[in-house]
Amino acid sequence: MSKIKLSAISTTAPKKLDKEKIKATTREILQELDELQNLLYAQHKHCVLMVVQGMDASGKDGVIKNVTGTLNPQGCTVHSFKAPTPEETDHDFLWRVHKQAPGKGMIQVFNRSHYEDILIQRVHKWIDEKTARKRMTAINDFEQLLTVHNNTHILKFYLHVSREAQQQRLTERTEDPRKMWKYNENDLEEAKLWDQYMDAYEDAFKYCNDIPWIIVPADHNWYKEYIIALTLRDTLKSLNMKYPRLKK
Amino acid sequence: MSKIKLSAISTTAPKKLDKEKIKATTREILQELDELQNLLYAQHKHCVLMVVQGMDASGKDGVIKNVTGTLNPQGCTVHSFKAPTPEETDHDFLWRVHKQAPGKGMIQVFNRSHYEDILIQRVHKWIDEKTARKRMTAINDFEQLLTVHNNTHILKFYLHVSREAQQQRLTERTEDPRKMWKYNENDLEEAKLWDQYMDAYEDAFKYCNDIPWIIVPADHNWYKEYIIALTLRDTLKSLNMKYPRLKK
Repeated sequence: MSKIKLSAISTTAPKKLDKEKIKATTREILQELDELQNLLYAQHKHCVLMVVQGMDASGKDGVIKNVTGTLNPQGCTVHSFKAPTPEETDHDFLWRVHKQAPGKGMIQVFNRSHYEDILIQRVHKWIDEKTARKRMTAINDFEQLLTVHNNTHILKFYLHVSREAQQQRLTERTEDPRKMWKYNENDLEEAKLWDQYMDAYEDAFKYCNDIPWIIVPADHNWYKEYIIALTLRDTLKSLNMKYPRLKK
Repeated sequence: MSKIKLSAISTTAPKKLDKEKIKATTREILQELDELQNLLYAQHKHCVLMVVQGMDASGKDGVIKNVTGTLNPQGCTVHSFKAPTPEETDHDFLWRVHKQAPGKGMIQVFNRSHYEDILIQRVHKWIDEKTARKRMTAINDFEQLLTVHNNTHILKFYLHVSREAQQQRLTERTEDPRKMWKYNENDLEEAKLWDQYMDAYEDAFKYCNDIPWIIVPADHNWYKEYIIALTLRDTLKSLNMKYPRLKK
């Protein structure tokens, strides 16, 4: 696979789409998801791992709230990956990730993920390029393990926001009292590394593509929520799940 | 690598060895291990995973007690793998194993291990041959992950006991009051599957050989303890560890 250029991919919703119609469709999809999730949980055969990646202010929290927030939390959990603890850095980088893998019947959402280990760590040169490549191999092996050995359907979303939209949202965090809790002075420093991050993401898409990435234009919340809800719905539908028969 | 035949490998100590001399040497090695383990813990860079596999009554518990029992338990832990719990079977077969991987500075002992997933499960045909092969690939990937990404030195010991010695030890469990607690009526049924188990072990050695196996003649406890202590000592010595300097 050749390297894709993120700068050549639109960050906005297609112009021909009607925002209100799409929002209505998303609501219908979320209703469908209710039944599909129940089937997933009841059949107890498959599981889903939704990886949500994206730059700061690309809308990860919002999409998790609005798309998976309507699901039954008994069958859908979210894990946010923060800076590793000392116990976690004492182990290989996938140790803490594997612990959070979904069990059968479950939808697990990763807010950030094992990909940070080849993104922030690489951009800041905390790891060398040789280690980065070895991590990519290990990530591919790990995703295969989950797929082959536990029927895990992995959906890897990249929330593709424009630099301008990011800047605007980061500024809002300094001005809107309801958003100030999200402000981190470090975000502005990280934002300066935009080009390096784009490059690292493009490598992640190229070298960790056994399970394909879904690049979601993320400047408009209504469109990104639609794409993610739709992808999840179609994935669950494709499993042709059935309620188990009564065990006698 | 061609398949080795376990039946062609001796289960007894070499005749020329003097039992009392070897026992004295083992005591010296265990003293050396005391200092080496302290270094491993202090340097906090490497870790060791000792996998102890073998048929029922091959002496796994004894060797763990006598070799690792003299180590500082703050830096050496043992995990015994039993039949998986419902939470464990809800995940891929390596999920529960990865959680138990050693952190830096630690020696972790596996009493049984992920290999049971291609031994007992295969012998009883709980998994098909295609699944068994896929598990072997996943095991190789997993062992590479630990090795490459956390400086884990994996020592895989197979305690090679003869069928006669096993039978004798299983009989002792029905007669010796101090051993009766180990008796499990299922053991005699499992023992009847000897040939199938040997075949499954030989395949494990052939297909999961990226990290090589150490086949330990196990009919004599003094010899098997010597070999395992020696291997651990030599492994730790080869790391050329140094105490960290004072951080100022």
